[in-house]
Amino acid sequence: MTDASLEERIARLEAVHEIQNLMGRYSYWHTANMHRECLSLFAMKTPGVRAEMMWGVYEGPEGIRRLYEGWHRHLGPAADVGAMHMHALTTPVIEVAGDLRTAKATWVSPGHETMSFSVAAGATPEAFWAWCKYGCDFILEDGQWKIWHLHVYGIFLAPYGRSWVEQPEDMIDPPPMLPEHEPDRPPTTHWQYKPDREYVNEPAPPAPFDTFEEANAF
Amino acid sequence: MTDASLEERIARLEAVHEIQNLMGRYSYWHTANMHRECLSLFAMKTPGVRAEMMWGVYEGPEGIRRLYEGWHRHLGPAADVGAMHMHALTTPVIEVAGDLRTAKATWVSPGHETMSFSVAAGATPEAFWAWCKYGCDFILEDGQWKIWHLHVYGIFLAPYGRSWVEQPEDMIDPPPMLPEHEPDRPPTTHWQYKPDREYVNEPAPPAPFDTFEEANAF
Amino acid sequence: MTDASLEERIARLEAVHEIQNLMGRYSYWHTANMHRECLSLFAMKTPGVRAEMMWGVYEGPEGIRRLYEGWHRHLGPAADVGAMHMHALTTPVIEVAGDLRTAKATWVSPGHETMSFSVAAGATPEAFWAWCKYGCDFILEDGQWKIWHLHVYGIFLAPYGRSWVEQPEDMIDPPPMLPEHEPDRPPTTHWQYKPDREYVNEPAPPAPFDTFEEANAF
Repeated sequence: MTDASLEERIARLEAVHEIQNLMGRYSYWHTANMHRECLSLFAMKTPGVRAEMMWGVYEGPEGIRRLYEGWHRHLGPAADVGAMHMHALTTPVIEVAGDLRTAKATWVSPGHETMSFSVAAGATPEAFWAWCKYGCDFILEDGQWKIWHLHVYGIFLAPYGRSWVEQPEDMIDPPPMLPEHEPDRPPTTHWQYKPDREYVNEPAPPAPFDTFEEANAF
Repeated sequence: MTDASLEERIARLEAVHEIQNLMGRYSYWHTANMHRECLSLFAMKTPGVRAEMMWGVYEGPEGIRRLYEGWHRHLGPAADVGAMHMHALTTPVIEVAGDLRTAKATWVSPGHETMSFSVAAGATPEAFWAWCKYGCDFILEDGQWKIWHLHVYGIFLAPYGRSWVEQPEDMIDPPPMLPEHEPDRPPTTHWQYKPDREYVNEPAPPAPFDTFEEANAF
Repeated sequence: MTDASLEERIARLEAVHEIQNLMGRYSYWHTANMHRECLSLFAMKTPGVRAEMMWGVYEGPEGIRRLYEGWHRHLGPAADVGAMHMHALTTPVIEVAGDLRTAKATWVSPGHETMSFSVAAGATPEAFWAWCKYGCDFILEDGQWKIWHLHVYGIFLAPYGRSWVEQPEDMIDPPPMLPEHEPDRPPTTHWQYKPDREYVNEPAPPAPFDTFEEANAF
C-alpha cells in the first residue's frame, strides 16, 4: 500500500463528504430563498452545466441563472411571506468516479411546500406534502466539488388534506410562467405518482464507475 | 502512526460509506419492485444470512429468495400499477467492528405505502404514512460489504386520513399469504405504536465493538 | 504529502462520522425516553456547554441536567404510555474546524410527536407532525466528540388533521412547567412557520472554518 494510493482513497472519502455538504447547502439555501447564493454551488465554468426541473431543462450558466435568479424570484420578495419550500435529503447513494474527476449521487427527498396560488395581499397559502428525488452529477471545478447536472424527479405533491391517490390531476408545476423564464427544452423524465402508473427506477442509484459517460448522465 | 494503521482507518471509513450506499440501493430497488436485484445485496454465501420482517424471520439464502422472489412478487406485476412502497433512510448510526469483518447499523425510515387490498382490475389503491426502523448487521463477503441480517422494526402504518393514534387495530402486515411464502419462524420483536404501549429502544443504536457476537445480532 | 497530513485528513473524516453517530444516538435515545443516557453525549466538562430549546437556553452541566433529568422526566414514567417523540436526522452539513478541536453541523429533522396534554389515566394522546432543525457545535473532550451547543430551531408542529397553515396559534411548547425546570434565559431564536412570516436562514449551514468563534456559535 503506497502513500499515493492512500491519498487517493482519502480524496475519494473527502469527495463523498463534500458532496453531501454541497447538496445540503443547496437544500438549506433553496428553502431560505437564497437563490443567488445557490448559483455558487453549480459548475458555472464547466460545459454542460444544467438543471432539470419537472417542467424542463435549463442549460448552461445562462440557463442556471434564468432558473434561480429569474424564475425562482419572479413573484418578488412579497411572495416569500407565508411560503416555505423544504426538500430534505435522505437515502444517499454517492459514487465517486475511479478517475476522481466526477461523481454521481441520488437522494430521496421528503418535504413539503407551502405557497399561495395568488399574489394578492392576504391570500392564504396552502400546505402540501411534497416528496421528490434528486439524481445529480458532480464535477471538480478549480479544485472544488460543484453541481454539474441537477435533476429533480417527482414522487408526489399532495394537498395536506388529500393524499397522492385522491389528488386527481397532475399538479401543474410551475404555474404559468413568463416567456423569459421558460426552460431551454422539455423534461427528459415525467414520472410522478398516479394510481394508473407503475413506479419506475428513476433515478437509478449509481453503481461504481471509472469515468463519466454522457449516456449515463442524470 | 504506521501506514498499516492509517490503511485500517481508511478501510473503516470506506466501510461506513459502502454500507450507506448498500442500504440506499436496497431502498431504491425495493421501491422499484426490483426484488430479484435486492438478492445481490445480501450475504447469500454466508451462514446465518436472514431477514426479519414484522411478520416473521426468513432464514438462509432459501429464505431470502422466498421473501424477495416469492412473497414480494406473489401478486404478480399487475399489482405494481398504482402501488408504491417507499422507505427512506435517515438518522444513521453505523459502527464497524474493530476486526473490520462485520458492522452494525440502525436507521429511522420515514416513508409511505400505497397499495390496494384487492387485486381486482381498477381497484383503488389506498395511501398510508409508514415509518419504520432498520437494524442491520453487515459482513464482508468476497471483499464486498453485504447485508447479513436485515431486521425491520415497526413504528406506524397510518391511513393518510387517520393518524397512528386513531388507527384502532394493529395493521395486519402482510395480508394472508400462501403457505409457500411463510417465514421460517415468528418475529423476535413486535413493537409498533399503539396508544396503550410504551416506546421501546429497539433497535438500540450500536456502540463501538470489537467483534460480532450473536447475542447482539439484529 | 506527509503521513502527518494524511493522518489529519483521516481524523477529520472520522470526526464527521463520529458526529453523525453521536447525533444519531441522541435521536434514538431521546425517542426512547433515555434522557439520563443523553447526558453522556454532552461535553459536561467543557465550559459553555448548553442546550437551547424553543422555550429557552439551559446552561452549563447543571442546566443540561435540569433539562434532561428534570424537565423531560417531570411527568414521570406514567406519561410515557402512548407518547412518542421522534426527530429524524437528514440533510447533514458537517464542517470540522481546521484546528480539529471543534465542529459545526446542521440537520433538517422530519418527525412527529404523540402526547397527551393531560396526565389523567386513560387520556387519549394526540398525534402531530413535527419538523424542526438542529444547529450544533461539537468539541473534543477527553478524545471523544461531544455535543457542546445543541440548538433546536422550529419549523412546525401541526396536528395530524390540520396543516401548519391552518394551525392558528403558535404552539405553546412546552406546557407550563415547574419553576425548577425553567431555562436559564430566553431563547435567542424564535422562528416557526406562520402564514404571515417569511422563512429565515436559521441555522445557516456551516461554511469551512479554521477555529471556533463564539460569535458564530449555534
